[in-house]
Amino acid sequence: MIIIVTGMPGSGKSKIVKEFERRGFPSVSMGDVVREETAKRGLELTKENVAKVSIRLRQELGQNAVAKLTVEKVKSLLKKSTLVVIDGVRSLDEVGTFRSAFPDEEIVIIAVHTPPRLRFERLKARGRHDDPQTWEDFEERDWKELKFGIGNVIAMADHMIVNDGTKDEYDKRVKELVDRVLTQH
Amino acid sequence: MIIIVTGMPGSGKSKIVKEFERRGFPSVSMGDVVREETAKRGLELTKENVAKVSIRLRQELGQNAVAKLTVEKVKSLLKKSTLVVIDGVRSLDEVGTFRSAFPDEEIVIIAVHTPPRLRFERLKARGRHDDPQTWEDFEERDWKELKFGIGNVIAMADHMIVNDGTKDEYDKRVKELVDRVLTQH
Repeated sequence: MIIIVTGMPGSGKSKIVKEFERRGFPSVSMGDVVREETAKRGLELTKENVAKVSIRLRQELGQNAVAKLTVEKVKSLLKKSTLVVIDGVRSLDEVGTFRSAFPDEEIVIIAVHTPPRLRFERLKARGRHDDPQTWEDFEERDWKELKFGIGNVIAMADHMIVNDGTKDEYDKRVKELVDRVLTQH
Repeated sequence: MIIIVTGMPGSGKSKIVKEFERRGFPSVSMGDVVREETAKRGLELTKENVAKVSIRLRQELGQNAVAKLTVEKVKSLLKKSTLVVIDGVRSLDEVGTFRSAFPDEEIVIIAVHTPPRLRFERLKARGRHDDPQTWEDFEERDWKELKFGIGNVIAMADHMIVNDGTKDEYDKRVKELVDRVLTQH
Protein backbone atom coordinates (compact mmCIF):
# COMPACT_ATOMS: atom_id res chain seq x y z
CA MET A 1 0.00 0.00 0.00
CA ILE A 2 1.13 3.52 -0.80
CA ILE A 3 -0.04 6.44 1.31
CA ILE A 4 0.10 9.86 -0.29
CA VAL A 5 0.03 12.70 2.23
CA THR A 6 -0.96 16.09 0.90
CA GLY A 7 -1.91 19.52 2.23
CA MET A 8 -1.06 23.20 1.89
CA PRO A 9 2.16 24.57 3.47
CA GLY A 10 1.87 24.65 7.25
CA SER A 11 -1.22 22.45 7.36
CA GLY A 12 0.40 19.72 9.44
CA LYS A 13 1.40 17.03 6.93
CA SER A 14 4.57 16.02 8.73
CA LYS A 15 2.70 14.89 11.85
CA ILE A 16 0.84 12.33 9.74
CA VAL A 17 4.05 11.11 8.12
CA LYS A 18 5.68 10.81 11.55
CA GLU A 19 2.76 8.80 12.95
CA PHE A 20 3.17 6.23 10.17
CA GLU A 21 6.93 6.17 10.84
CA ARG A 22 6.32 5.67 14.55
CA ARG A 23 4.41 2.52 13.59
CA GLY A 24 7.34 1.26 11.57
CA PHE A 25 6.46 2.36 8.04
CA PRO A 26 9.05 4.22 5.93
CA SER A 27 8.41 7.46 4.06
CA VAL A 28 9.83 9.34 1.09
CA SER A 29 9.76 13.13 1.02
CA MET A 30 9.53 14.48 -2.52
CA GLY A 31 11.21 17.66 -1.28
CA ASP A 32 14.15 15.57 -0.02
CA VAL A 33 14.37 13.88 -3.43
CA VAL A 34 15.01 17.28 -5.04
CA ARG A 35 17.44 18.27 -2.28
CA GLU A 36 19.37 15.02 -2.78
CA GLU A 37 19.55 15.66 -6.53
CA THR A 38 20.86 19.15 -5.80
CA ALA A 39 23.61 17.77 -3.57
CA LYS A 40 24.43 15.04 -6.15
CA ARG A 41 25.06 17.79 -8.68
CA GLY A 42 27.59 19.36 -6.35
CA LEU A 43 25.46 22.38 -5.55
CA GLU A 44 25.01 24.00 -2.16
CA LEU A 45 21.57 23.45 -0.64
CA THR A 46 20.23 26.99 -1.02
CA LYS A 47 16.60 27.72 -1.86
CA GLU A 48 17.69 29.06 -5.28
CA ASN A 49 19.76 25.99 -6.17
CA VAL A 50 16.99 23.60 -5.15
CA ALA A 51 14.50 25.58 -7.28
CA LYS A 52 16.94 25.53 -10.20
CA VAL A 53 17.50 21.76 -9.98
CA SER A 54 13.75 21.29 -9.72
CA ILE A 55 13.31 23.12 -13.04
CA ARG A 56 16.24 21.30 -14.68
CA LEU A 57 14.86 17.93 -13.59
CA ARG A 58 11.59 18.77 -15.36
CA GLN A 59 13.50 19.70 -18.53
CA GLU A 60 15.39 16.42 -18.38
CA LEU A 61 12.68 14.01 -17.24
CA GLY A 62 9.42 15.81 -18.02
CA GLN A 63 6.74 17.49 -15.91
CA ASN A 64 6.60 14.64 -13.39
CA ALA A 65 10.37 14.41 -12.92
CA VAL A 66 10.28 14.43 -9.13
CA ALA A 67 7.53 11.82 -9.04
CA LYS A 68 9.58 9.61 -11.38
CA LEU A 69 12.65 9.83 -9.12
CA THR A 70 10.40 9.14 -6.14
CA VAL A 71 9.07 5.97 -7.81
CA GLU A 72 12.56 4.43 -7.65
CA LYS A 73 12.82 5.10 -3.92
CA VAL A 74 9.33 3.75 -3.26
CA LYS A 75 10.12 0.60 -5.25
CA SER A 76 13.11 -0.20 -3.09
CA LEU A 77 11.21 0.58 0.14
CA LEU A 78 8.33 -1.69 -0.91
CA LYS A 79 10.78 -4.61 -0.90
CA LYS A 80 11.08 -4.26 2.86
CA SER A 81 7.72 -2.79 3.90
CA THR A 82 4.10 -3.46 2.92
CA LEU A 83 3.31 0.24 3.33
CA VAL A 84 5.25 3.29 2.14
CA VAL A 85 4.31 6.94 2.73
CA ILE A 86 4.95 9.63 0.10
CA ASP A 87 5.12 13.19 1.39
CA GLY A 88 4.79 16.22 -0.88
CA VAL A 89 2.61 15.20 -3.85
CA ARG A 90 1.37 18.35 -5.58
CA SER A 91 -0.77 17.27 -8.54
CA LEU A 92 -3.13 14.56 -9.76
CA ASP A 93 -0.63 14.05 -12.57
CA GLU A 94 1.94 12.96 -10.00
CA VAL A 95 -0.67 10.69 -8.42
CA GLY A 96 -1.16 9.24 -11.91
CA THR A 97 2.58 8.59 -12.19
CA PHE A 98 2.44 6.55 -8.98
CA ARG A 99 -0.70 4.69 -10.09
CA SER A 100 0.99 3.73 -13.37
CA ALA A 101 4.22 2.71 -11.68
CA PHE A 102 2.44 0.62 -9.03
CA PRO A 103 -0.66 -0.85 -10.69
CA ASP A 104 -0.97 -3.60 -8.05
CA GLU A 105 -0.57 -1.39 -4.97
CA GLU A 106 -3.52 0.24 -3.28
CA ILE A 107 -2.91 4.01 -3.30
CA VAL A 108 -4.58 6.03 -0.55
CA ILE A 109 -4.58 9.84 -0.51
CA ILE A 110 -4.68 11.53 2.89
CA ALA A 111 -5.21 15.30 2.96
CA VAL A 112 -4.93 17.62 5.91
CA HIS A 113 -6.76 20.93 5.91
CA THR A 114 -5.96 23.95 8.05
CA PRO A 115 -7.70 27.31 7.46
CA PRO A 116 -5.35 29.82 5.75
CA ARG A 117 -5.29 32.29 8.69
CA LEU A 118 -4.17 29.53 11.03
CA ARG A 119 -1.55 28.22 8.61
CA PHE A 120 -0.13 31.71 8.30
CA GLU A 121 0.10 32.10 12.08
CA ARG A 122 1.76 28.71 12.45
CA LEU A 123 4.27 29.26 9.63
CA LYS A 124 5.18 32.66 11.04
CA ALA A 125 5.76 31.05 14.43
CA ARG A 126 7.73 28.14 12.92
CA GLY A 127 10.08 30.55 11.18
CA ARG A 128 11.95 28.03 9.04
CA HIS A 129 14.21 29.99 6.66
CA ASP A 130 11.73 29.63 3.78
CA ASP A 131 8.60 30.31 5.88
CA PRO A 132 6.62 33.47 5.06
CA GLN A 133 6.67 36.37 7.49
CA THR A 134 4.06 38.53 5.73
CA TRP A 135 0.58 37.74 4.43
CA GLU A 136 1.76 38.62 0.88
CA ASP A 137 4.64 36.10 1.06
CA PHE A 138 2.21 33.56 2.43
CA GLU A 139 -0.24 34.07 -0.43
CA GLU A 140 2.58 33.87 -2.96
CA ARG A 141 3.84 30.59 -1.52
CA ASP A 142 0.30 29.18 -1.43
CA TRP A 143 -0.24 30.22 -5.01
CA LYS A 144 2.92 28.36 -6.07
CA GLU A 145 1.48 25.15 -4.62
CA LEU A 146 -1.97 25.77 -6.10
CA LYS A 147 -0.50 26.31 -9.58
CA PHE A 148 1.03 22.83 -9.43
CA GLY A 149 -2.50 21.52 -8.83
CA ILE A 150 -2.31 20.60 -5.14
CA GLY A 151 -5.94 21.74 -4.71
CA ASN A 152 -7.04 18.94 -7.01
CA VAL A 153 -5.21 16.33 -4.92
CA ILE A 154 -6.84 17.72 -1.77
CA ALA A 155 -10.29 17.71 -3.42
CA MET A 156 -9.85 14.05 -4.43
CA ALA A 157 -8.48 12.77 -1.10
CA ASP A 158 -9.69 9.44 0.25
CA HIS A 159 -9.32 10.73 3.80
CA MET A 160 -9.49 14.32 5.01
CA ILE A 161 -8.38 15.44 8.43
CA VAL A 162 -8.94 18.94 9.76
CA ASN A 163 -6.29 20.64 11.88
CA ASP A 164 -8.10 23.69 13.25
CA GLY A 165 -8.06 23.02 16.98
CA THR A 166 -5.42 22.49 19.65
CA LYS A 167 -2.21 20.51 19.19
CA ASP A 168 -3.59 17.72 21.40
CA GLU A 169 -6.79 17.50 19.37
CA TYR A 170 -4.78 17.21 16.18
CA ASP A 171 -2.49 14.55 17.69
CA LYS A 172 -5.58 12.55 18.59
CA ARG A 173 -7.14 12.97 15.14
CA VAL A 174 -3.92 11.88 13.43
CA LYS A 175 -3.69 8.72 15.56
CA GLU A 176 -7.35 7.89 14.91
CA LEU A 177 -6.91 8.47 11.20
CA VAL A 178 -3.84 6.25 10.96
CA ASP A 179 -5.70 3.52 12.91
CA ARG A 180 -8.60 3.82 10.52
CA VAL A 181 -6.43 3.71 7.41
CA LEU A 182 -4.53 0.66 8.68
CA THR A 183 -7.71 -1.28 9.51
CA GLN A 184 -9.84 -0.18 6.52
CA HIS A 185 -7.35 -0.79 3.77
CA MET B 1 -21.36 38.60 5.86
CA ILE B 2 -21.17 36.39 2.78
CA ILE B 3 -20.84 32.63 3.12
CA ILE B 4 -19.42 30.77 0.15
CA VAL B 5 -20.23 27.07 0.18
CA THR B 6 -18.04 24.86 -1.98
CA GLY B 7 -17.37 21.18 -2.51
CA MET B 8 -17.17 18.53 -5.21
CA PRO B 9 -20.40 17.16 -6.77
CA GLY B 10 -22.25 14.94 -4.34
CA SER B 11 -20.22 16.08 -1.33
CA GLY B 12 -23.24 17.45 0.57
CA LYS B 13 -23.13 21.22 -0.06
CA SER B 14 -26.89 21.63 -0.14
CA LYS B 15 -27.32 20.48 3.45
CA ILE B 16 -25.13 23.36 4.61
CA VAL B 17 -27.06 25.86 2.49
CA LYS B 18 -30.35 24.52 3.88
CA GLU B 19 -29.13 24.80 7.46
CA PHE B 20 -28.41 28.52 6.95
CA GLU B 21 -31.83 28.92 5.30
CA ARG B 22 -33.51 27.16 8.22
CA ARG B 23 -32.02 29.87 10.44
CA GLY B 24 -33.51 32.57 8.25
CA PHE B 25 -30.61 33.45 5.95
CA PRO B 26 -31.19 33.62 2.17
CA SER B 27 -29.03 31.91 -0.44
CA VAL B 28 -28.17 32.29 -4.10
CA SER B 29 -27.37 29.25 -6.21
CA MET B 30 -24.96 30.04 -9.04
CA GLY B 31 -26.44 27.11 -10.95
CA ASP B 32 -29.89 28.69 -10.65
CA VAL B 33 -28.48 31.99 -11.94
CA VAL B 34 -27.48 30.25 -15.19
CA ARG B 35 -30.79 28.38 -15.37
CA GLU B 36 -32.70 31.67 -14.97
CA GLU B 37 -30.63 33.26 -17.74
CA THR B 38 -31.45 30.27 -19.95
CA ALA B 39 -35.17 30.70 -19.32
CA LYS B 40 -34.93 34.48 -19.87
CA ARG B 41 -33.48 33.79 -23.32
CA GLY B 42 -36.55 31.74 -24.18
CA LEU B 43 -34.70 28.40 -24.16
CA GLU B 44 -35.94 25.13 -22.72
CA LEU B 45 -34.09 24.06 -19.55
CA THR B 46 -32.15 21.16 -21.01
CA LYS B 47 -28.59 20.32 -19.92
CA GLU B 48 -27.34 21.35 -23.40
CA ASN B 49 -29.08 24.75 -23.39
CA VAL B 50 -27.84 25.57 -19.89
CA ALA B 51 -24.27 24.65 -20.93
CA LYS B 52 -24.63 26.80 -24.08
CA VAL B 53 -25.90 29.83 -22.15
CA SER B 54 -23.10 29.34 -19.64
CA ILE B 55 -20.55 29.59 -22.48
CA ARG B 56 -22.34 32.57 -24.10
CA LEU B 57 -22.45 34.41 -20.79
CA ARG B 58 -18.67 34.07 -20.52
CA GLN B 59 -18.27 35.43 -24.06
CA GLU B 60 -20.49 38.40 -23.21
CA LEU B 61 -19.40 39.18 -19.64
CA GLY B 62 -16.00 37.53 -19.31
CA GLN B 63 -14.70 34.47 -17.45
CA ASN B 64 -16.53 35.36 -14.23
CA ALA B 65 -19.87 36.02 -15.91
CA VAL B 66 -21.91 33.90 -13.53
CA ALA B 67 -20.23 35.44 -10.49
CA LYS B 68 -20.99 38.91 -11.86
CA LEU B 69 -24.69 38.09 -12.27
CA THR B 70 -24.66 36.56 -8.80
CA VAL B 71 -23.25 39.80 -7.34
CA GLU B 72 -26.45 41.62 -8.32
CA LYS B 73 -28.60 39.06 -6.53
CA VAL B 74 -26.40 39.12 -3.43
CA LYS B 75 -26.56 42.94 -3.37
CA SER B 76 -30.32 42.95 -3.24
CA LEU B 77 -30.43 40.19 -0.61
CA LEU B 78 -27.94 42.05 1.61
CA LYS B 79 -30.49 44.88 1.85
CA LYS B 80 -32.75 42.56 3.83
CA SER B 81 -30.31 40.16 5.51
CA THR B 82 -26.97 40.56 7.30
CA LEU B 83 -25.85 37.19 5.94
CA VAL B 84 -26.18 35.74 2.44
CA VAL B 85 -25.06 32.29 1.31
CA ILE B 86 -23.62 31.67 -2.17
CA ASP B 87 -23.81 28.11 -3.44
CA GLY B 88 -21.72 26.85 -6.35
CA VAL B 89 -18.47 28.88 -6.41
CA ARG B 90 -15.92 27.05 -8.54
CA SER B 91 -12.73 29.15 -8.58
CA LEU B 92 -10.65 31.59 -6.55
CA ASP B 93 -11.23 34.03 -9.42
CA GLU B 94 -14.93 33.97 -8.62
CA VAL B 95 -14.13 34.45 -4.94
CA GLY B 96 -12.07 37.48 -6.03
CA THR B 97 -15.07 38.87 -7.92
CA PHE B 98 -17.11 38.71 -4.71
CA ARG B 99 -14.31 40.24 -2.64
CA SER B 100 -14.03 43.16 -5.07
CA ALA B 101 -17.78 43.66 -5.25
CA PHE B 102 -18.20 43.57 -1.45
CA PRO B 103 -15.05 45.08 0.07
CA ASP B 104 -16.80 45.77 3.38
CA GLU B 105 -18.38 42.37 3.85
CA GLU B 106 -16.64 39.54 5.63
CA ILE B 107 -16.40 36.61 3.20
CA VAL B 108 -16.20 33.14 4.70
CA ILE B 109 -15.52 30.02 2.63
CA ILE B 110 -16.98 26.74 3.85
CA ALA B 111 -15.90 23.56 2.10
CA VAL B 112 -17.32 20.10 2.50
CA HIS B 113 -15.22 17.06 1.69
CA THR B 114 -16.48 13.58 0.91
CA PRO B 115 -14.12 10.85 -0.35
CA PRO B 116 -14.59 10.21 -4.11
CA ARG B 117 -15.81 6.59 -3.67
CA LEU B 118 -18.55 7.74 -1.31
CA ARG B 119 -19.58 10.65 -3.54
CA PHE B 120 -19.88 8.25 -6.45
CA GLU B 121 -22.12 5.88 -4.46
CA ARG B 122 -24.29 8.75 -3.27
CA LEU B 123 -24.65 10.34 -6.72
CA LYS B 124 -25.53 6.96 -8.23
CA ALA B 125 -28.18 6.49 -5.56
CA ARG B 126 -29.50 10.06 -5.98
CA GLY B 127 -30.00 9.47 -9.72
CA ARG B 128 -30.79 13.08 -10.71
CA HIS B 129 -30.94 13.22 -14.52
CA ASP B 130 -27.38 14.65 -14.72
CA ASP B 131 -25.89 12.36 -12.04
CA PRO B 132 -23.22 9.89 -13.20
CA GLN B 133 -24.06 6.20 -13.34
CA THR B 134 -20.57 4.93 -14.16
CA TRP B 135 -17.17 5.63 -12.60
CA GLU B 136 -16.00 7.09 -15.96
CA ASP B 137 -18.92 9.59 -16.04
CA PHE B 138 -18.18 10.45 -12.43
CA GLU B 139 -14.50 11.12 -13.13
CA GLU B 140 -15.43 13.22 -16.16
CA ARG B 141 -17.84 15.34 -14.16
CA ASP B 142 -15.30 15.76 -11.35
CA TRP B 143 -12.69 16.80 -13.86
CA LYS B 144 -15.02 19.49 -15.25
CA GLU B 145 -15.25 21.02 -11.78
CA LEU B 146 -11.51 20.68 -11.12
CA LYS B 147 -10.68 22.43 -14.40
CA PHE B 148 -12.66 25.46 -13.22
CA GLY B 149 -10.39 25.54 -10.16
CA ILE B 150 -12.75 24.27 -7.47
CA GLY B 151 -9.84 22.42 -5.82
CA ASN B 152 -8.20 25.77 -5.07
CA VAL B 153 -11.32 27.07 -3.36
CA ILE B 154 -11.49 23.89 -1.27
CA ALA B 155 -7.78 24.17 -0.36
CA MET B 156 -8.28 27.77 0.79
CA ALA B 157 -11.47 27.23 2.80
CA ASP B 158 -11.88 28.97 6.16
CA HIS B 159 -13.88 26.01 7.44
CA MET B 160 -13.75 22.40 6.31
CA ILE B 161 -16.34 19.83 7.20
CA VAL B 162 -15.97 16.13 6.39
CA ASN B 163 -18.97 14.07 5.30
CA ASP B 164 -17.70 10.50 5.47
CA GLY B 165 -19.94 8.98 8.13
CA THR B 166 -23.66 8.43 8.60
CA LYS B 167 -26.37 10.91 7.63
CA ASP B 168 -27.02 11.68 11.31
CA GLU B 169 -23.34 12.38 11.96
CA TYR B 170 -23.24 14.76 9.02
CA ASP B 171 -26.45 16.53 10.14
CA LYS B 172 -24.82 17.05 13.52
CA ARG B 173 -21.55 18.31 12.04
CA VAL B 174 -23.41 20.77 9.79
CA LYS B 175 -25.39 22.20 12.72
CA GLU B 176 -22.23 22.55 14.83
CA LEU B 177 -20.40 24.21 11.94
CA VAL B 178 -23.18 26.73 11.33
CA ASP B 179 -23.29 27.50 15.08
CA ARG B 180 -19.52 28.02 15.04
CA VAL B 181 -19.57 30.25 11.97
CA LEU B 182 -22.40 32.39 13.39
CA THR B 183 -20.67 32.89 16.73
CA GLN B 184 -17.06 33.24 15.48
CA HIS B 185 -17.66 35.74 12.72
